[in-house]
Amino acid sequence: MSADEAAGGPSGRLVDELVAANRILGHEGVLDAYGHVSVRHPEHPEWFLLSRARSPEYVEAADIMTFDLDGAVVGDGGPVPYIERFIHAAVYGERPDVGAVCHNHALAILPFSIAREATLHRTINAARLFGDGVPVWDIADEFGTSTDLLVRSIDQGRALARRLGAGPVALMRGHGSVVAGEDLVSVVRACLDMERGARAQVDLLALGPPVRPTDAELAAPPDPSPGGPGRDREWERLCRRAGVAS
Amino acid sequence: MSADEAAGGPSGRLVDELVAANRILGHEGVLDAYGHVSVRHPEHPEWFLLSRARSPEYVEAADIMTFDLDGAVVGDGGPVPYIERFIHAAVYGERPDVGAVCHNHALAILPFSIAREATLHRTINAARLFGDGVPVWDIADEFGTSTDLLVRSIDQGRALARRLGAGPVALMRGHGSVVAGEDLVSVVRACLDMERGARAQVDLLALGPPVRPTDAELAAPPDPSPGGPGRDREWERLCRRAGVAS
Amino acid sequence: MSADEAAGGPSGRLVDELVAANRILGHEGVLDAYGHVSVRHPEHPEWFLLSRARSPEYVEAADIMTFDLDGAVVGDGGPVPYIERFIHAAVYGERPDVGAVCHNHALAILPFSIAREATLHRTINAARLFGDGVPVWDIADEFGTSTDLLVRSIDQGRALARRLGAGPVALMRGHGSVVAGEDLVSVVRACLDMERGARAQVDLLALGPPVRPTDAELAAPPDPSPGGPGRDREWERLCRRAGVAS
Amino acid sequence: MSADEAAGGPSGRLVDELVAANRILGHEGVLDAYGHVSVRHPEHPEWFLLSRARSPEYVEAADIMTFDLDGAVVGDGGPVPYIERFIHAAVYGERPDVGAVCHNHALAILPFSIAREATLHRTINAARLFGDGVPVWDIADEFGTSTDLLVRSIDQGRALARRLGAGPVALMRGHGSVVAGEDLVSVVRACLDMERGARAQVDLLALGPPVRPTDAELAAPPDPSPGGPGRDREWERLCRRAGVAS
Repeated sequence: MSADEAAGGPSGRLVDELVAANRILGHEGVLDAYGHVSVRHPEHPEWFLLSRARSPEYVEAADIMTFDLDGAVVGDGGPVPYIERFIHAAVYGERPDVGAVCHNHALAILPFSIAREATLHRTINAARLFGDGVPVWDIADEFGTSTDLLVRSIDQGRALARRLGAGPVALMRGHGSVVAGEDLVSVVRACLDMERGARAQVDLLALGPPVRPTDAELAAPPDPSPGGPGRDREWERLCRRAGVAS
Repeated sequence: MSADEAAGGPSGRLVDELVAANRILGHEGVLDAYGHVSVRHPEHPEWFLLSRARSPEYVEAADIMTFDLDGAVVGDGGPVPYIERFIHAAVYGERPDVGAVCHNHALAILPFSIAREATLHRTINAARLFGDGVPVWDIADEFGTSTDLLVRSIDQGRALARRLGAGPVALMRGHGSVVAGEDLVSVVRACLDMERGARAQVDLLALGPPVRPTDAELAAPPDPSPGGPGRDREWERLCRRAGVAS
Repeated sequence: MSADEAAGGPSGRLVDELVAANRILGHEGVLDAYGHVSVRHPEHPEWFLLSRARSPEYVEAADIMTFDLDGAVVGDGGPVPYIERFIHAAVYGERPDVGAVCHNHALAILPFSIAREATLHRTINAARLFGDGVPVWDIADEFGTSTDLLVRSIDQGRALARRLGAGPVALMRGHGSVVAGEDLVSVVRACLDMERGARAQVDLLALGPPVRPTDAELAAPPDPSPGGPGRDREWERLCRRAGVAS
Repeated sequence: MSADEAAGGPSGRLVDELVAANRILGHEGVLDAYGHVSVRHPEHPEWFLLSRARSPEYVEAADIMTFDLDGAVVGDGGPVPYIERFIHAAVYGERPDVGAVCHNHALAILPFSIAREATLHRTINAARLFGDGVPVWDIADEFGTSTDLLVRSIDQGRALARRLGAGPVALMRGHGSVVAGEDLVSVVRACLDMERGARAQVDLLALGPPVRPTDAELAAPPDPSPGGPGRDREWERLCRRAGVAS
């Protein structure tokens, strides 16, 4: 047991993985100066780890803070946190199965967040996470038409988490998305798949009606399954591209 | 007080920030060999700082010149200035609230400058600066149909500035845009948002009619507000990507 | 004769070329963490060479394994292979003229794999390999609607190889493509041409009906022909871009 | 006078500029392994300089060969030349005003080479070189429907040059383009503008009918005019990006 772990802090390995996830998502263009990615605390499931308010591509281990499921800092104040940390807090609170969360504004998915007649849904295999259609959360439904669209309270976060339901992704009208998964590798991969799936769907609109996957195909487990060798090779690649140790 | 400041010149810090803004906009692809970015002189609001005619990505502190609100060089002649410096002079003259200006030919916005039936307007949050619709200035309205579309005089610049009105951005028919803001960080960010907003709007045309933001959402203050921590983290990122000190 | 060759293994030169093909296809974005490229064994045409399950951009000579035409490892077990090695095994088995194979999920071609009314066909010269239309293989035709779309057996691989027929490329519904050619240089080039051709065809949909090539033009030999100087200069370029010796 | 000049060869400075143009067009993605750029010999206007058959991004001074206006090598045989050198020979022969030529397959313009109903024409300022519409040369008009579309003879080159007429650019059906200008800087710039103009025109198709430039605007001289400071700053930038001395 390290000194950190003895003190109740997360292991250095998990912090390293969270730093890597930040840098990867920045390097791959899913996150720019905004958006963030977090991981649930392994020993304290009522806490989660998230960087201070910093551009993800430059996050370091020393930037990682701990929050509770109301979005409050665990321990002393520390540096300025992200305003929208409530997204993470609420998803961990509503979804015991979720181990990692990303909030992003990936450009390819944003038009789908305001399209009245088009739903982001599974087309190609990489878009499997979209299933029959990605839910869109409209902050105005519960919080009125005068917000700036940002999730600024735990109540707003919980409304978003309810719209997310049991799935891996929800869009936020005019603003972005939330992606949830069992661990950081799953969430990073889902973010990259989300962009590929959205771009393919836009191209498809020019090509005409597609063949839709069958219900059984939609229900197939993700490929490759967690813990399998495919995940390892994807993680190695993403870490090398972003210049972090895998 | 530095020697420069004692001599009435701008502080080294502001020049460094202007150099950084040039390099960032070049690095991010908003400016190529053409287009330019300027900042109002902090002690002499009737002057502004702008590079000599050079590709923004390679501008150095020694390239920075000072101009008055007619677009004339302050002091001795010096090197060759940009032809279209009148855009900057006129916007600073008409708009006391403006502290920085960029003229660019970002590819994503150019089609909107000549589309008869499509107006660049707010769709996603990053496009908030477009508001209800970005005005398009047609040089032919006042200066006839025989120009080369360039702003070659202070009178042409002032006509453009009037079309800009109180907003942050105007398009110039067939040519480019002018972006104005309170400081360099705001203007750099607006340029990047402008490109994202325009690309999202083109994709939306394939997806069908969008949900439009409410009036109150359109009126919400920019996020993050000037001076806030979000701006710091964005500037840090952009400087690091462009290889300049932040 | 090297020790490897004496032992019945492939020459170091061919392994180097296969490593280069992996790195090139990774570097150029045809392959990411998934997809793979193989070459037939020059002395044992009933075998082929393929990396262990690793991201192609990082494949090294030590990762190269040997498989037979049922997709079984030749020799002792070794590391974890790619699940979909059966694609390669089946194409080499059905097509004696084929010396190299790539399975990929290049984003530009994926929408065509599920479009009901649009067929990837030759438009521009770079798309010559598409001929009159690229066949689409639907795994559900023979293997039902409950698969995860992956080619997990030699029987599935052989069905795909039959759909490929005598051509250089087939699409796999919702999943990807298989590209076959006489050697690695041909296959790498075909993958790059495939992406260019697909992107041009999507743009063409906005431009209206195209002039189609004539039958004789479609029948013209590939340019430049194998062994010619054009191939050398293309390979030199691709190797230099990917940072490998040519 | 250098030894080269004494021997009737071109000056080292011009060769350096041609090498730079090759590397720039490769670096910027206008040329890949195929396509080429040439310059007329300054002392012998009946000759022109062109690399041996090599990827432009890697051309060196030692690769430069001299050809006459029939496309024959001046002097001893030397290395393998580009097949399509006849394009250059014919344009220099037909157009005494032309000092540099590029043949390319830039992806953005290729769909326009086969669109029956869409003509590449001036929309935005960067597309000024398109004028009222870029001519498309169809090799089948004079040489039948059984070619491979490549320009393999001086007769084919001359037919293309006649279709080019007095303008700066012509498309070649299903294949590519030829760009001609008074010097290398003009031609490099025209190639980059051509790509920007084509991309803008495709986006415009989604936005609806555009405002067209006036006849006088179309007739305005290019900006900036040859020899002016704008050209210097563009050339500096392109050389620095491509890693060559300007």
